Amino acid sequence: MINIIEDLEIGELEETNYIKPIKVKFTLNGVKKTWEAVRSHDSVAILLYNVEKKAFLLVKQFRIPVYLNDKSIKYTYELCAGLVDKNKSIEEIAVEEIDEECGYKVKIEDLKKITSFFTNVGVSGAKQHLFFTIVNDSQKIHNGGGINDEQIELFFLDENKIDDLLFDESKAKTPGLMFSLYWFLKNKDKLGL
Amino acid sequence: MINIIEDLEIGELEETNYIKPIKVKFTLNGVKKTWEAVRSHDSVAILLYNVEKKAFLLVKQFRIPVYLNDKSIKYTYELCAGLVDKNKSIEEIAVEEIDEECGYKVKIEDLKKITSFFTNVGVSGAKQHLFFTIVNDSQKIHNGGGINDEQIELFFLDENKIDDLLFDESKAKTPGLMFSLYWFLKNKDKLGL
Repeated sequence: MINIIEDLEIGELEETNYIKPIKVKFTLNGVKKTWEAVRSHDSVAILLYNVEKKAFLLVKQFRIPVYLNDKSIKYTYELCAGLVDKNKSIEEIAVEEIDEECGYKVKIEDLKKITSFFTNVGVSGAKQHLFFTIVNDSQKIHNGGGINDEQIELFFLDENKIDDLLFDESKAKTPGLMFSLYWFLKNKDKLGL
Repeated sequence: MINIIEDLEIGELEETNYIKPIKVKFTLNGVKKTWEAVRSHDSVAILLYNVEKKAFLLVKQFRIPVYLNDKSIKYTYELCAGLVDKNKSIEEIAVEEIDEECGYKVKIEDLKKITSFFTNVGVSGAKQHLFFTIVNDSQKIHNGGGINDEQIELFFLDENKIDDLLFDESKAKTPGLMFSLYWFLKNKDKLGL
């Protein structure tokens, strides 16, 4: 994945559609406090394991907030994921994201919920629901890559190369991805894999 | 930990000290884009293992962004952690946070860097540096709990109770904590524990 970034401009955030910055005042155990926060959507993320390739299907994506922090990072390694921003169940959204981003057809009943967690407790407080699903090549229905110019690239991570990715700090990744890969290793036998 | 929350008010975020909402415009591979983001600080987090108690020392903390998302969550389970917001090395900041939050005296050379990751790639792009350290009871120098009204409570997680915490979705936690606990399980023998 080669990403060419040009014409970068950073301005004030006035009207917002996706995130909402807020100032919160409250009293905690009798002590008055204020906090700067951002409201954002919850999300779903799915670890996809291609049983024929013995590899995980991850997505590579340009993330402007990460790039602004470290200009050497032209893409991040992530789980297939999406926002819970429509009136559908988290399972329905997970299945849609697997289709849109990865091009695989998965049934809701083939999703296994792993657990959930809060990805940014200090700022956004958004929750992520984590799923696992096994796919095979016959479920591939199109190339994936996301919709609306998402510019997502697919990446197969060999199941024997997990630590090569996790401990290479030049490769930006999320802790949810990291946890899910170690969950897989711990549960591989139980999953019959 | 009982947290009583009163007088909750949510207002516009006008002047900010901790986070900076921004609107970013850029061209990615020839396609013009805009993105709503927040600049915030990188952080350090430390998994502390008390070798005498055979337990991890975690912190319980009230997090207003999480509470706004789900009013049933009065505290989160987290790693000892702190912002990289001063002119010190990440190792120096880690040692300070272990002292302030947990009340243990740890030497920089006893910190083991695990890896790093990006905790919120879509909004803040902040990086977290993850460390591990082994402590014993003789290193306990005070009660901990944080400074400036941080109201942090310490919590020992028995090393045999990891999955009880990770898969209880009523207990809010971060994916960095979850990954670090599974990293410990995978490396326990190598660490001589």
